[in-house]
Amino acid sequence: MAQYKIPVLPGDGIGPEIITEGKKVIDAAGERFGFDVDWIEYPQGADHYLETGELISEDTLKELSAYDAIYLGSIGDDRIAPGVLEKGILLAARFYLDQYINLRPIKLLEGVWCPLKDKTPADIDFTVVRENTEDFYIGIGGRAKTGTSKDLLEVSRTLYSAKFGLDIETDSEEIAYQIGMISKEGTQRVIDYSFDLAEKSDKHVSSVDKANVLSDIYGFWREEFNTIAAKHPDVKTDFNYVDAITMWFVKNPEWFDIVVTPNMFGDIITDLGAMVQGGLGLAPGGNINPNGTSMFEPIHGSAPKYKGMNKVNPIATIWAGSMLIEQLGEKEAADAIVSAIEKNILEAKVQTYDMGGSNTTTDVGSDIARILLEM
Amino acid sequence: MAQYKIPVLPGDGIGPEIITEGKKVIDAAGERFGFDVDWIEYPQGADHYLETGELISEDTLKELSAYDAIYLGSIGDDRIAPGVLEKGILLAARFYLDQYINLRPIKLLEGVWCPLKDKTPADIDFTVVRENTEDFYIGIGGRAKTGTSKDLLEVSRTLYSAKFGLDIETDSEEIAYQIGMISKEGTQRVIDYSFDLAEKSDKHVSSVDKANVLSDIYGFWREEFNTIAAKHPDVKTDFNYVDAITMWFVKNPEWFDIVVTPNMFGDIITDLGAMVQGGLGLAPGGNINPNGTSMFEPIHGSAPKYKGMNKVNPIATIWAGSMLIEQLGEKEAADAIVSAIEKNILEAKVQTYDMGGSNTTTDVGSDIARILLEM
Ligand SMILES: CC(C)[C@H](C(=O)O)[C@@H](O)C(=O)O
Ligand SMILES: CC(C)[C@H](C(=O)O)[C@@H](O)C(=O)O
Repeated sequence: MAQYKIPVLPGDGIGPEIITEGKKVIDAAGERFGFDVDWIEYPQGADHYLETGELISEDTLKELSAYDAIYLGSIGDDRIAPGVLEKGILLAARFYLDQYINLRPIKLLEGVWCPLKDKTPADIDFTVVRENTEDFYIGIGGRAKTGTSKDLLEVSRTLYSAKFGLDIETDSEEIAYQIGMISKEGTQRVIDYSFDLAEKSDKHVSSVDKANVLSDIYGFWREEFNTIAAKHPDVKTDFNYVDAITMWFVKNPEWFDIVVTPNMFGDIITDLGAMVQGGLGLAPGGNINPNGTSMFEPIHGSAPKYKGMNKVNPIATIWAGSMLIEQLGEKEAADAIVSAIEKNILEAKVQTYDMGGSNTTTDVGSDIARILLEM
Repeated sequence: MAQYKIPVLPGDGIGPEIITEGKKVIDAAGERFGFDVDWIEYPQGADHYLETGELISEDTLKELSAYDAIYLGSIGDDRIAPGVLEKGILLAARFYLDQYINLRPIKLLEGVWCPLKDKTPADIDFTVVRENTEDFYIGIGGRAKTGTSKDLLEVSRTLYSAKFGLDIETDSEEIAYQIGMISKEGTQRVIDYSFDLAEKSDKHVSSVDKANVLSDIYGFWREEFNTIAAKHPDVKTDFNYVDAITMWFVKNPEWFDIVVTPNMFGDIITDLGAMVQGGLGLAPGGNINPNGTSMFEPIHGSAPKYKGMNKVNPIATIWAGSMLIEQLGEKEAADAIVSAIEKNILEAKVQTYDMGGSNTTTDVGSDIARILLEM
């Protein structure tokens, strides 16, 4: 019998509740398909930070890098300033473990309420491949005041003026700035990954950028995309400005197969995608390092106001669990988990409030585990 | 009789066709409400650029700055690399004329098909106040190679590593970067404007940012927002991460009254907003300098593939025309134009293809002008 060791970070807010159900379902899949999981719990999150001052240490990350896959609940807590936990734990893990793909299936399951008129599960079934370690996520920026040597605003206006031969004035005294950066290697590997996915499924790849305005960074992205596209003459491609793609996600989701996107735009459009597929309670994601340690999580946050209420939908987390065991090689068990989720939804008997039901988080996890064992 | 001189830039693609209808309706409003417009045509756009090499000169911009309001069609052409015309004409005008507010009403008109289930005109009626001269729109960025003194990637990774005490490696040979910047003055004036709007209508202001990741630039935005909010204890406020707000636009548009947003996120969410209000054919925008020269345009692009076909919907442009004459002080005429648009839509007899009809651009403009004169 196959044995897996899987590190788990339940995290904050509702994290522990949903992860409990995720583990329950994976354990059931193990029982059904003949594998055994040894769960290794990690305490990182708000409480741990408030008690010890530690976010996640390099030692812990090194330890995690020995495994193939990590199961993550959710990170974020109202007691702590925005970004501290998210950057210090979630992004630190994505970066340190070089999880350069953020894979987000946008799939409307049969029986799920879709906020869009006239769209069915046949229309909403695509995958977003989000770059996950670069772009505006690198965390570089600062503030500057007029008169200091760092007066970037003055510099920028001067450069901008020079570019268009225009005299544009400013007299602000203080500015804040942020730098985004993408590397050739980092851009190529995520675009390569998206074309590989397309090759497997005979589909097309849509690229997202804003090359008409953020031309330096996304002009580069577009060039790399074109170079790789030229090596795949059989794959159809198109370009979408990030503003426009939010419209097409709503109006014509059936156009999309594989969408490849820089990190920040990927963050934005996958939340929209989650809503289009029925809501955050149903949207899983994988932070993938194809040659290293991947990490699977629901794409929703820690929902502090629901903490401890046993109320939220565990399906996103359970679905992320399916992606996790697929990554470990348990394809049949992974598919069975998705089928069990679909059956639970279609039966519409045991559901959380967001799907119109009145059952608990625990009820739904148990029901999906039951279905899996009876399948 | 009031006399106005209004400069017009029809621009590229379908621009001339829709602007013709926009002028027709404003002229009709003038006939009905007693004012007269002298239209001053400007040739800027793709053809002019290809013929003369000129985008828009400082002389022209200076000339334009003598007027209160400009009427703009659309800018953009497939023969020219992405960004050249958009930055060289549209953004140059926004920046040079210091149109620091981009005002975008998101309003579902009675009788318009909405892509969202269960939402009515009562649910979709809010205003996005987009900052319009700063942020990632300043056009500063570049490329760097390993080994040169400009190796920003190395720097960034070192800084990022230092921040979290982690050792993150990179070995890419080439990077591209982009810098965004917001100033204290630039941030305050747009937030002030949004609170002024809220005070007038006893409503609430929602701020958009991504302070949990782009903490330097949007942490600053959030601080300024908080400072201004403290001066308006009667106005309710909330914060929305840009990823999350795309979900709420779809799920709960009725939550929003005034949404204030940095430039780039504003670009993205207003396209989504346009779709939610029935599509780009219906979404107007104003680039406002409250003490200078404003510029009104449909928020859609130049749609090159429809050029010369007399096919696209002129309503966004006509609605932008209503915003324009309101800015000039013709409030009654401005309201009448919107009423005429609503009547045209409700009658559902003369409509373009995007609204299920088979009439031309010209037909719709003429119909709205007729309704206005008969009202
Ligand atoms: C919590 C936050 C840092 C994160 C992100 O921006 O990537 C989240 O929104 C996501 O999409 O996984
Ligand atoms: C054409 C483009 C430069 C412009 C922008 O990004 O601002 C457009 O998308 C808009 O929203 O007005």
